[in-house]
This record gives sequence, structure tokens and C-alpha cells, in this order.
Amino acid sequence: MRKDLTGRRLRAGIVGGGRGAFIGAVHRIAAELDGQALLVAGALSSDPQTARESAAGWYLDRSYSDFGDMARAEAAREDGIDFVIIATPNHMHYPVAKAFLESGIPVVCDKPLAFSVQEAEALVELVVRSGHLFALTHNYTGYPAVREARDRVRRGLLGEIRKVVVEYHQDWLLSSVESTGNKQAAWRTDPSRAGLSGCVADIGTHAENLLEYITGCKIIAVCADLSSFGPNRILDDDANILLRLQGGGKGSMSCSQIACGEENELSIRVYGSQAALEWRQQDAGTLIFKPAGRSWERVRVAGPDVSAASRAASRVPAGHPEGYLEAFAVLYREVIEDLRRLALGEPEQGGYPTVHDGLRGMKFIAGAVASSKLGGVWLPL
Amino acid sequence: MRKDLTGRRLRAGIVGGGRGAFIGAVHRIAAELDGQALLVAGALSSDPQTARESAAGWYLDRSYSDFGDMARAEAAREDGIDFVIIATPNHMHYPVAKAFLESGIPVVCDKPLAFSVQEAEALVELVVRSGHLFALTHNYTGYPAVREARDRVRRGLLGEIRKVVVEYHQDWLLSSVESTGNKQAAWRTDPSRAGLSGCVADIGTHAENLLEYITGCKIIAVCADLSSFGPNRILDDDANILLRLQGGGKGSMSCSQIACGEENELSIRVYGSQAALEWRQQDAGTLIFKPAGRSWERVRVAGPDVSAASRAASRVPAGHPEGYLEAFAVLYREVIEDLRRLALGEPEQGGYPTVHDGLRGMKFIAGAVASSKLGGVWLPL
Amino acid sequence: MRKDLTGRRLRAGIVGGGRGAFIGAVHRIAAELDGQALLVAGALSSDPQTARESAAGWYLDRSYSDFGDMARAEAAREDGIDFVIIATPNHMHYPVAKAFLESGIPVVCDKPLAFSVQEAEALVELVVRSGHLFALTHNYTGYPAVREARDRVRRGLLGEIRKVVVEYHQDWLLSSVESTGNKQAAWRTDPSRAGLSGCVADIGTHAENLLEYITGCKIIAVCADLSSFGPNRILDDDANILLRLQGGGKGSMSCSQIACGEENELSIRVYGSQAALEWRQQDAGTLIFKPAGRSWERVRVAGPDVSAASRAASRVPAGHPEGYLEAFAVLYREVIEDLRRLALGEPEQGGYPTVHDGLRGMKFIAGAVASSKLGGVWLPL
Amino acid sequence: MRKDLTGRRLRAGIVGGGRGAFIGAVHRIAAELDGQALLVAGALSSDPQTARESAAGWYLDRSYSDFGDMARAEAAREDGIDFVIIATPNHMHYPVAKAFLESGIPVVCDKPLAFSVQEAEALVELVVRSGHLFALTHNYTGYPAVREARDRVRRGLLGEIRKVVVEYHQDWLLSSVESTGNKQAAWRTDPSRAGLSGCVADIGTHAENLLEYITGCKIIAVCADLSSFGPNRILDDDANILLRLQGGGKGSMSCSQIACGEENELSIRVYGSQAALEWRQQDAGTLIFKPAGRSWERVRVAGPDVSAASRAASRVPAGHPEGYLEAFAVLYREVIEDLRRLALGEPEQGGYPTVHDGLRGMKFIAGAVASSKLGGVWLPL
Repeated sequence: MRKDLTGRRLRAGIVGGGRGAFIGAVHRIAAELDGQALLVAGALSSDPQTARESAAGWYLDRSYSDFGDMARAEAAREDGIDFVIIATPNHMHYPVAKAFLESGIPVVCDKPLAFSVQEAEALVELVVRSGHLFALTHNYTGYPAVREARDRVRRGLLGEIRKVVVEYHQDWLLSSVESTGNKQAAWRTDPSRAGLSGCVADIGTHAENLLEYITGCKIIAVCADLSSFGPNRILDDDANILLRLQGGGKGSMSCSQIACGEENELSIRVYGSQAALEWRQQDAGTLIFKPAGRSWERVRVAGPDVSAASRAASRVPAGHPEGYLEAFAVLYREVIEDLRRLALGEPEQGGYPTVHDGLRGMKFIAGAVASSKLGGVWLPL
Repeated sequence: MRKDLTGRRLRAGIVGGGRGAFIGAVHRIAAELDGQALLVAGALSSDPQTARESAAGWYLDRSYSDFGDMARAEAAREDGIDFVIIATPNHMHYPVAKAFLESGIPVVCDKPLAFSVQEAEALVELVVRSGHLFALTHNYTGYPAVREARDRVRRGLLGEIRKVVVEYHQDWLLSSVESTGNKQAAWRTDPSRAGLSGCVADIGTHAENLLEYITGCKIIAVCADLSSFGPNRILDDDANILLRLQGGGKGSMSCSQIACGEENELSIRVYGSQAALEWRQQDAGTLIFKPAGRSWERVRVAGPDVSAASRAASRVPAGHPEGYLEAFAVLYREVIEDLRRLALGEPEQGGYPTVHDGLRGMKFIAGAVASSKLGGVWLPL
Repeated sequence: MRKDLTGRRLRAGIVGGGRGAFIGAVHRIAAELDGQALLVAGALSSDPQTARESAAGWYLDRSYSDFGDMARAEAAREDGIDFVIIATPNHMHYPVAKAFLESGIPVVCDKPLAFSVQEAEALVELVVRSGHLFALTHNYTGYPAVREARDRVRRGLLGEIRKVVVEYHQDWLLSSVESTGNKQAAWRTDPSRAGLSGCVADIGTHAENLLEYITGCKIIAVCADLSSFGPNRILDDDANILLRLQGGGKGSMSCSQIACGEENELSIRVYGSQAALEWRQQDAGTLIFKPAGRSWERVRVAGPDVSAASRAASRVPAGHPEGYLEAFAVLYREVIEDLRRLALGEPEQGGYPTVHDGLRGMKFIAGAVASSKLGGVWLPL
Repeated sequence: MRKDLTGRRLRAGIVGGGRGAFIGAVHRIAAELDGQALLVAGALSSDPQTARESAAGWYLDRSYSDFGDMARAEAAREDGIDFVIIATPNHMHYPVAKAFLESGIPVVCDKPLAFSVQEAEALVELVVRSGHLFALTHNYTGYPAVREARDRVRRGLLGEIRKVVVEYHQDWLLSSVESTGNKQAAWRTDPSRAGLSGCVADIGTHAENLLEYITGCKIIAVCADLSSFGPNRILDDDANILLRLQGGGKGSMSCSQIACGEENELSIRVYGSQAALEWRQQDAGTLIFKPAGRSWERVRVAGPDVSAASRAASRVPAGHPEGYLEAFAVLYREVIEDLRRLALGEPEQGGYPTVHDGLRGMKFIAGAVASSKLGGVWLPL
């Protein structure tokens, strides 16, 4: 029997993301921003007291100290959660997702999808078998300008895609933050919790996903040069990667967590045979469009000249900046709309990254790491 | 007897802002964004059906078709609203505020404060007499970079303030939108609902408020040249205004609703004897700091080198853009924190614009209009 | 008998601009940049030794210590100069120009035109009577993007001009530089050499000229608020001015020499009924074009979508920046082309500012100063 | 016997660069810009009539149709040229340089140094043996901001260099321009005149030179992916290259002549352990300095906070943009100063790229081409 989701905000639960984990608050705001959901339950920490205090701080109705208990209990309640958000470190994505999917609860999961390609493949199978909605928060795909970019590529305005330059530069691991008690840095630089890779897994996959999302071209081979500049750092904190794309395009990716002075400089430039486009998160509401033989256009996300895709992802009048939280919330809005459709027996419409995108991301991580370990050779994905 | 506001999200009501009024949704998102309040009741439109449908669209518990009824009913309920949001056209601010204040319900009101200076003065008196919290949503003061700017002025980093250039340029009234059925344009260009002024009242007051908020210098005299370029437009849609500031500084304001191609180009530059600063809404997360004899600094709102004031107003890691909604939500967060303090018998801490700022804004409007009508003469405020 | 100017670089002379006067070197480079003229003679300083040493430093063939001697001697020589450049302080423009014009030598004069409106009027008469070419180096009109801007206005792309915002901000007089032995600051702040005004005369006239050059609209009235922030400074170092334009447009000008942190921030925005345009010297090779209801275009001076006017003023392939010297040199190139035409009995083609533009500038200075002295009243020009 | 170079402008000759070759005019302007040299002789084209007409257009005293004749004749004249400029296609660099060096005439040569590594090595030997000055116009090294960047690296402000991202993007070969009669495109895409490479040779070497000039780190290995997107194009028109630097730094280079919409987007970012810096030719007068843990600084080339190195390369007051020609002219000024020093028996001071830099560039081209031909493998340089 399907739940009735009409006439009310959906009820959301969250695993992970308690105090000190910035990403938990981001998920909460994003899930609730459009007034279509409320967070009501959580297993916010593996530490019971932190879990309880975090839940109280968010005024949650129900706090759990174990995600398995939570999955079972929420599935059993009439007023149980309608979906769960996974905001844990990477190694917990799979077990948590498994618990909720098997309890019949749809999942919105943070990226990267899992701890390893093997886990990711298992998760794909699990999602497909369960038939439940599973969304992956490659949140940058929610920016209106990114939607506009994809729309322009799809409409053929760029012609044949020849060259893509994608970058994600940060500097938060410039010094040895992981040795100072910073929890976020600690797990992200720890192979037992982060997996094979640091920088490529954490932000390179965002870049990879953004490239494929906008261009529609799969990355078919990589040649990677990964580095660990931080003292005693095991996982990569910087990467330069050459890319070959389905359809004959070439590309390069630079991602770094030691790029001194950079905050979260995510950008992409796509060069086609008829036009190019450029987007930078630092000017998130603008898409630069560069048609061959004409002046550049500064396409604004809620301005004239934009597609329905961009307009649908904007909430405020043109010129009033929207940011990271709003983009994140676009994914949640689409998930919730799909959950409402499914509850009415209607087909999903998607728009947000899926478990399949997540598997591609995991293969990208594995490919980049292997390429670099072999001295920087080309490997197919 | 004080309400108990602990351990729960506050309950908010709203008057105005139903379907087709973009600002209603903005208030709802901003009020709820930090998870400290939920909208539960509303008188969303003077048209009962629109009111009902708008309320259902937002999953409100209670919908009213009359704001007076709402004020009385909510005041009487044990689970009544903890504060009300006024998002109506200007001429309704006063009567609605009056109804709620007299029912003992705190008010968050859109700007400009009222329909006229007289009404504004009456409202100040009413607020003071009632002892209830009253906040005015000059929302641009909620931007972290604006907080940083004010903080730097207060710390004396600019020295003596000599020159201020403030601008707010839009183009949405470039053509005669008001004659095409656009409700927003209709009331804003109608003297019976907007008041004395169009452009100066709608956006010039934001500029005026921003200038005074950041610099701490009151505008003491204006010399204004207002224009109505739109066909058959009665109220001003463009203004150039010379300013004299308390303390000897000079300034100029340009605001326009017919500045072709501009979306919401709000900017301010403050020049002191020792340093200057510049902020533009289009790059909202950046404050340019220009110390005498040294290179400009690009101060980022969640980056290094910022004050606690800026950091408190940011929610996401540096480099992830925040925008209009987040800035708006900063005011709501401060209001809610003050409501919680008051409920515990603690003093308010403020931070958000008040009814007194609103009165200054109304005097600015009246002064600018009178100056221009007299042919552009200097008038004291 | 006309001189034969064919098959050779023209011979130029210069008065003023010796050592320590940056503008002299600018004129030399600009005059010679296109390989159409060589500086061969000069009266570079009123101090004979400085004059001699300066001339030797530039490898001039002939050095004079008196401009009157120079005018007479050069007029008498078969290989005398073909034109003279005046790069003295303002109070010397008139006497020097007079000496050369009366000797039959064409003049390129720095701005502002003269010391007073009276002198300017006398100079206009002198030029007209003499029939000799007289150019005024409002050098910013030589930028290709400024040419493109004017061309777009002339082609009617902006529709009716409604609003102009023009600014010129510097900070070199932030402190009392004139009391430190700086020669440039000394004469520019001295009423006996600079004239009625400091800031308005030195840079405000550039802004005024740029506005009229681009828009083709004369300024018909001003309301000015001039200030002298520098200690013991007699002349203005800052100005905010409201403008009314022929044809019904409105405008504002801000110019300052105490705008902390600004180098030479010259910018103009012109808003029409159908499009707007924006130019900033800091991004000199770009004109932002803002058509109503479409995305902004980034028009590049040697790129696609530009007029012949812009292309003619560019020398290098698109994307290779040109600057101040190249713009200055555009005026010299046009002057030299006109001198060659005149030598062949062909009509002048102009393009560069004239003595008439110079007179308008002097009236603008006088009007702004008078308006401010009267407390900031509107005065017709 | 040394020539006397005192008290006069130097006399320059030029080979190549006649009508239709934009780079010839660039060299002429750059060589003459500071008033230290005059172009007096040329072999401007291999076509005698074009040579003659081009020479007349530049008012040259002497025109030659054969560079060998020119070298001999000028060496023999008492008033012969003091140095020669080589502005021919790549395959002529070596023979022309040889002719002049062997006639005792110093050389300023366009880049890349030669047609092949072998020729480059021969030229190095020739220069060393001859003892004559030889400069290579990697003109971007003449930008004041580039000088400032190098100075900051040298002073150790960046700490250890970890990552460099350098780009040079153009789009002039987006379509098959070489088949339309464009002379510039024809030789640059023709292996018999351009050599092994198109894009990497033409602009990649500029990027390579800039990287080494600023960082002082040699590129020790490359892994390159070159493409030819243009129809029937034999040489590369796009390249993505991974770099390894002396000292342990990593890097990437992207250069392209088919990057739709880009004019001459040359940029470099250098990330060190203590600070980073960024420079873009499109904002040539600005160096962004990014110190760890502090706000970015916008260092302006003639502003406060710059080194003597930057100041020496600027000619106009801060805020007045300088561009491509001025940067080019900085190299000529340094060459001329060295020629004057040498004539006085003083040691050279250099500053400009040399024949040794040119050889490195040729090895970079050869390495990148070989790496790509082998499928994208790492090759040492």
C-alpha cells in the first residue's frame, strides 16, 4: 500500500550530519527550503549523547542512536519518514542505504556513492531490485546556470564538443589539518573511511559528474597524476587528469585541496565547434555563452534568454543572487516531486543524479588512482 | 503571561504574499530557513479563494480571509502564532501592524514602513507603547559582507567618512508593465497604494538604509532630481540624489527602475580618510577593502580576515555562494533569537532594522520627493 | 605655400613636459607611436638647464628655453616642426597656443583648454581666425571601446537617452601631497596656475567630455556639490554633480581625487529606452552592451560585432590588451592624418576633440564651481 | 672597434613583417616606443615590390629584397643598423639570424627560436661563438605584473611551488582559415614552414616560457595529448599537457587555437605552500596574490605594494591600463639598454628571454609532440 503524500509536507529522516558536521545542516536546509518537507527523525551520530543533543537542537520528534533501529522503527510507524538522507562518511553510505532501502524507505545519499566500486555495484543492484527512489547529491547540478548549460548543449547550440576544462580547487588541506583534531579532515584523509582517494573522491567526482551532466559525454579514458603534498598524507590532495570523451572530445581536470587561497573554485568550460560556455561557482548565477564569431553573452539564470530548465531552478527575481543552498534544494525539490508522483502511481521524472551516476563516479575515482599508481598511463573507464 | 518558546520551532503567520506575489514566498523561505520557525497560518489574500488556495499550497494549518480576524483568533489560541509577517502593499502595512500589535503579536514588516510619514510616526508610537518586537525587512542588511562592512566602519578602519556612492538599478519598469496586468507593477506605480513615490520608496529606501546601516552616518540633507520616464507614469521611476551626511561626508544616490539591462544592481562604495570599501550585490560574498597606500583586499564573508559579525551571518563554507534568501533569513534568525530572549525575560539584542529606521526611510522618501518637486533644492531631513 | 608632408614622418615640437612631468613622456610616445611623427624640438621647461637636459634625454635636435623663441625659430626654418604639443600647466595653454598659432603652427593642446572661460573664448576666436588645426587631448575619446560606444548611440541602438552615470575617481590627493614638494600636485592645487577648480578641471572635464562625446547630448544644466577635503586645500578635490541633458535625459557625475584606493577609475554608463552601455577604463577593451530583454553582450574592441570605428582605433589582434598610450595615440594619428590632408588641400576629417569642445569644458567647470558656491543650485551651462 | 651608441636613438633593421603581417608592425612600435630606437632599414618581404612598398609605408631609409644583402650592406655602412629584428615565419629564423650574427649585428628574434631542435642547438652555438646579443621575444615576460610575479617567487613569498596551471586559448583556427587565403594561418599550419607543431609551437611555447620565467622551475617531463580538430589540419591545434617541474611541483597546460570565443586568453596560476598568485592577460595590470590564511590582494602594477621590477616595467600612472605593445616594448628597452652597455664595455644585465630559453622551448615542442605521438606517455625534456 502506498503512503498518501498529498496535502502535506513530507517527513524526512537523516543519518549522520550531527554537530560539527557542516553537511548535515546543509541537507536539512536544502530538504526543507521549498516548504515541501520537514526533518522529523534522525540518527545524527554514532555517539548517543551527541545524537540526542543534535536532534534536540533541530527540534526533531524522534532521535535514534542506531541507523538500523531507525530504519525498522520508521518503516513500522504510520507517521514514519517518507525518505531518508544519508550524510555520513563514505564508508557508511552502503550499509545505511541498504538498511533503509530494505525497509522500503527511499534514499537521498551524499557523494561519492560508496567506499569502493564493488560496494557501488552492489548498491546499484540493490536500488534496482528494491525499486525505490535513490538520489545522489551531486549538488552542483542543481544550479540554474548548470541547468541552462546542459540545456544549451542538448539543443545543439555548441555543435560538436571538442574540449572541456573542469576544475575544483580548495585549500582547506594546505596544512596538516587532519592532525589538529578536525573531524572532517580526519575521515577524509583516512583510507579506512574515505576509500581509495582523498581529493579525487571528495571533489574530483563533483567535477566529473558536472562535466558529464552538462555535456552528456561520458569520460572514456583518463591519464592521471595524483599527488599528496600534505605531510604524511596517504591519500591524494591534488590531481591533474587528462580526459578523453565519448564522441572524440578531449579534456582536462584539475582538482586540489592544497590550492592556496582558493575557497571552492569549481568551474567548467566547454568548447564546441559552434559555441562555448563557461560557468564558475563564484559567479553562480551567470553562464557565459560564447558563440562563434559573435560577442560573448552573459546569460543570467532568471533573466531573459534562458530556458525553462534554468527558470524552473530559480526562486527569486533576476539579479538577486542564489547560491549553494538553493542549488542543493533544487535536487530535493525534484526528489520530493518524484516521491509525490510515485505515491500517485505516476512515473518519476528525475533530473537529479542517480545511483548509476554514482557508480560512474566510483569508477572514475578507481581509474584515476590506478592510472596515477602506474606512473600516469591512459586507462579506459 | 509569557509564552513558552523553548524546545520548538516558532509558529509564524503571514498577511499578504499569496499567489503571484513573489515576496510572500521569500518571507516564508527566509523565516523557515534556519529551522527555527514554521509558517502555520495566513491571511494570504483579500480574495477568499486565493487566500484559501495559497494557504493550501503552503500546507498552512489555518487560513483567514481577514487580517483582523486572524489577529484576534491567533491571539486567542494556545497554539497561536508567535509572530506575524506583513507582506502586503505599502498602504496596508499600518493597519495590519496595528491589528497584530494590539493583539499582542510581534511583527516583521516589509518595507517601506508605511504609506506616509504621518502613518510611520503613528506606527513608531504604537510599537513603543505596545512594547512588542517590530522588525523591518531591509533585507540587504542581512548579507554577511554588509555586516563585515559595518563592522569595519565601526572599528574605525576607514577613518573619517568623506564620500559615499550608493546605487540601486533595475529595469523592470522600462516599459509600461503596469498596463499589462502585472499586479506587482500595478500597485507600485499607483499613488493610492504605494504612496508618494515609486522608485525612491521601493528601492531608494533600501539604498538609504544600507548607507546608514554601514556607515552609521545619518543623511541630513538631500537634493533630488526625480523622473518618470515611463509613459503616463505618475510616480518616479528614476532618481539622482545628492546627499549630505552627519559628520561632514558627502554622497550621491542613483536609483532607477528604468535602467535598461540591470537586474537588481545594488552597490555601495564608502570612502574614508584611511580606507574605502565597496560591496555589490552581484558579488554578494565579497567585500572589497581598499586601505590607503596598500593593495585592495578581497575580503570573503566566510574566509580569513573577517569579523565575528560576518561569520555569524554565514552558513556554508567559504566559496560556496550564499544569496538573497540567506541574507533575508539572517534577519529572521535574529528576530527569532530576540523573541526567544524576550520569552525568557532577557533583553533583546537587535541587529535587524527597526521601526525607527523605517521612519527615517519615510522621511527620506518625503524629502526626496519634496526636493524634486521644488526643482531640485537642498532640503534637510 | 603649403609644406610638403608626404613620404616622411612629421616633425613635432613640444612645450612643457620636461623631467618630472609624466604627461610630457605620454605625449611623446603617443605622437610617435604609429610611426607618423618624430619629436625634434622642444621648450621643455622654463628652467634653461632642465630644458636642455630634458631635450638631450629625448635626443631632440633643438632645445629652446623660451616658447616664443621656439615658435618664431621653428616657423622660420625650412625643416621646422609641423605641429606643436602643449603640455604645460593650465595657465600657460593660452599664451603658448597663441604664440604658435600666430606663427602658423598647428597645435595639439592638453586639457582643460585654458585658465578661464574668457581665455577659452579668446582661444576659440584665435583658432577660427588663424584657420590652423587645433586639437585638444581629451585622450579617453581615443579608446576603441569609446568609439564603439559613440557609434552605437549614433546608430540609434540605445533609443532615447534617459540616464547617464559618469565617474572619475582617483586618490592621489588623499593626503596633502601638494605640501611635500610634488610639482604635479603643487600646480594643480594652486588657483593661480590651475584656475577656478582642482578636481572638476582636472578630471571632471574628462568625464564631461566623455559623456558628450559618446551620447552626443549636451549637458544643459548642473547642480554641483564640490568639496575640499584635503587640509588647507583651496580648490575642490571632490564633486558630486547632477546633470540635465539636451533631449530630456538626466545624469550624475562623481569625480574625486580623494577616493581612497582608486587609481584612475573612469567609467560611464548610458541608459537608453532600448539598450544601455557601460565602459570602464579598467577593462578598456570591453564595451558592455545591454539590450532590453536580452542578455548582456561583452563587445570586444577588435572582436566580432564591432563597428569600423572601433576597429580603426585598434592596432593588435583581439584579446591583446591596448591601453592608455594607444588611446592617446589614436588622437595623434587622426591629427596627423588631418595635417597630411590639409597639406594636400583636402578637407579635415576630425574625430579628435576641438577647441569648441574645450570651451564647453571650461563652461562646465565654471558652472559647477558657481553652482556649488551658491549652495548647490541648478545653473544652466 | 665599437660603435658609438651615445646621444642618439639606435638604428634598427627588420627582416620580414611586411604588409599583411601584423607582427611586423608590433615589432616596429615596440622597438620605437620608448624613443630609444628608430627603424631605418628593412627586408620586409621576399617579394621585392611588397618589400619596397612596405618600406615606403614605414618611411624607412633603406629597403632590401634580400636579407643576406641587407646584412652585408648594413654591416659595411658607417650609419648601418645597430641591431636587426627577425619577424619571419619559423623556418627562416635560423638562416636570417646566422646572416646577421656573422655580419656582427645583434639580433632580436621572434619565437619559437627555430624550425627544429637541431637548428636551435646550432643557433645557440652560433650566438655563443659570435658573442653578440641575441634576444627572443617571448613578449609576455615584459608585462609589469609578470615581473612582479617573478619577483614574488624569487623573494620566497610563495614557499615551495606545488602546482601550476597555465593556459593559452585562442579560437582563430576554429574553422579552416588556412584554406581561405589567410597568409598567417597558411604558414602556421604548414609543417614545411612552421615545423613539428602548430598550436604548441605558436602559443604553447609562450605558456611554457611564462611558467619557467615566473616560477624559475624548469619543466622536466611532459605527458601530452595533442589534437587536430580543424578539417585536414596536419599540425596540432589543441593540446592538454601534464607537467612535472624541477623541485617536485606538478602542473598542467592547456593551449588551443580552436577554443571557440577566446581571443588570447593567456593565464597562469602558481600555487605554493605559503601563497599563490594568478595573472590573466585580460586584466594585464593586475596580479592576484593569495597568501595562506589571509584575503586575496589585488596587486596593481604601478600601485602600492609592488616591487621595483614591476615599477620599472610601467610607464604611466597607476590605473591607466598598459597592454601588449608596452609589454613588448619593455623587452626592446632592455635590449637597447644592454646594447648601450656593451658599447661602453659594460656587462649586459639581461631581463629578456635568450637563445637558451629558445632552445628549451624547442625541446618542449619536440617533447610534447613525441609524447602525444606515442599515445600520451611521460617523456623527460
